[in-house]
Amino acid sequence: MRLASWFLEHPHQIISLSALGSDLGAAKASLSEDIAIIDTALRASGTGWLETVAGQTGGVRFHVLQEAAQVHAFIQRLCTLLADPQRLLPGGYLYLSDLLGDPAFVRQASRIFAARFDQAGAQAVVTMETKGIPLAMSVGFFLGIPVVIVRHEDRVSEGTTVSVNYVSGSTGRLQTMRLARRLLPSGTAVLLIDDFLRGGGTMRGLLDLLREFDADVRGLGVLVETQQPEQKLVSDYVSLARITTVDGTALSAQPGRDYLASVPAPALSLSSLKEQI
Amino acid sequence: MRLASWFLEHPHQIISLSALGSDLGAAKASLSEDIAIIDTALRASGTGWLETVAGQTGGVRFHVLQEAAQVHAFIQRLCTLLADPQRLLPGGYLYLSDLLGDPAFVRQASRIFAARFDQAGAQAVVTMETKGIPLAMSVGFFLGIPVVIVRHEDRVSEGTTVSVNYVSGSTGRLQTMRLARRLLPSGTAVLLIDDFLRGGGTMRGLLDLLREFDADVRGLGVLVETQQPEQKLVSDYVSLARITTVDGTALSAQPGRDYLASVPAPALSLSSLKEQI
Repeated sequence: MRLASWFLEHPHQIISLSALGSDLGAAKASLSEDIAIIDTALRASGTGWLETVAGQTGGVRFHVLQEAAQVHAFIQRLCTLLADPQRLLPGGYLYLSDLLGDPAFVRQASRIFAARFDQAGAQAVVTMETKGIPLAMSVGFFLGIPVVIVRHEDRVSEGTTVSVNYVSGSTGRLQTMRLARRLLPSGTAVLLIDDFLRGGGTMRGLLDLLREFDADVRGLGVLVETQQPEQKLVSDYVSLARITTVDGTALSAQPGRDYLASVPAPALSLSSLKEQI
Repeated sequence: MRLASWFLEHPHQIISLSALGSDLGAAKASLSEDIAIIDTALRASGTGWLETVAGQTGGVRFHVLQEAAQVHAFIQRLCTLLADPQRLLPGGYLYLSDLLGDPAFVRQASRIFAARFDQAGAQAVVTMETKGIPLAMSVGFFLGIPVVIVRHEDRVSEGTTVSVNYVSGSTGRLQTMRLARRLLPSGTAVLLIDDFLRGGGTMRGLLDLLREFDADVRGLGVLVETQQPEQKLVSDYVSLARITTVDGTALSAQPGRDYLASVPAPALSLSSLKEQI
């Protein structure tokens, strides 16, 4: 059980078989058997799967997984939660603070993003303060990568910052977003995660900002998008739900787009495990 | 293993033994034995412990735990990370964005807060945007309670908001913090979690704001405090590290205060378990 809980606590991190033996006290004789048992149990419960990584820096790595049935159940629950007319705020905004402040909800939503972008090779998650942060941190945890938060203002100097102006589709106002150079090395492969997408002005601003860092954008994910406007400033994004306002007051919510992980988890390679022992 | 991973994924949530049997497919005959084995393994690895909750709404609940040796090792690592003169920013601020954007680091730090405040009976975690959010979300996850984020500005109306003015000790400027009424029911027991404490102006402002919500403050926790000023506007807080600036440039960091959980985890009650089956 100690071995299994280590994997659950350290998603996407490669651990060598010798470290599993020395640091976690796993019995060397039964190590490949133990790993196979954990892999089977993880897959059976729809929690995730183990990967054997060959070579000098190789070992075993835990990936989160979301079975389609689990994902659909969560999306249905999300749509029900969203279809509450009390969520509609003045200016076409949506009240999401209760959901984004619920750690268990955030964890489930971010598992879907993590499974969806598992093979994207991202080295960092980028988000815009404030409400995207909980989702981004949780996606970063499941993918084993750091999170970089783009700020609205320059409250405190963090050294050289890059800033871009953008028009928030919701307010129509010109705003500024900033990111300190030291927070994101040039050429980093990134995922963009945010809570809400309407016109795409903020997301477009983030893409403009990231170009200044030569970032390689591997994926965009938002919790909720709006049906209107249909023409958004970004394409090829993942959303978990899409909302429609009816008569400017009532809400209806449908499942979003492209959120199911398409890559099946490859089977555990026992031969590769045995070579490493 | 399925049982164990459920507990790890749902800290502080009471699950009835019948739900363990029906939803998770645990064998009823060996249920109390299985739970005792998991409890032993959790304690042995310093991960946590299981509690039996008696009564109609009773069941079993997983609490996170941090052994003193693990805590000390983490605090030492934190002090080493903090004692980097490059962290010193103009105006006496500290560069912490790399640490607060590292999900694994945040998870370890927040486990210490969660273990420390495990018995505080808090119903919500309150934090101030932006940098406190990752820590607060993770503490909320481990304590199974929601997180409420206090905002600097009223970007979007979330209905009636309460605001207070406060003087940030760092900038000396008068600022405003706001919280929507609907986010925090009156009389809620709360924990305050933030990243940085200097004079305590922000924390004092949060306490003033929370008084308007009749909140019952059960604890204050900050990642890093500064040695100067020694007289802070708040007392009785937990900090993980304390930094001193020497000659205005170099940094030294010592362990903070009061961060070790003092309540020993009570042993699992097998008789209570058997009564519930």
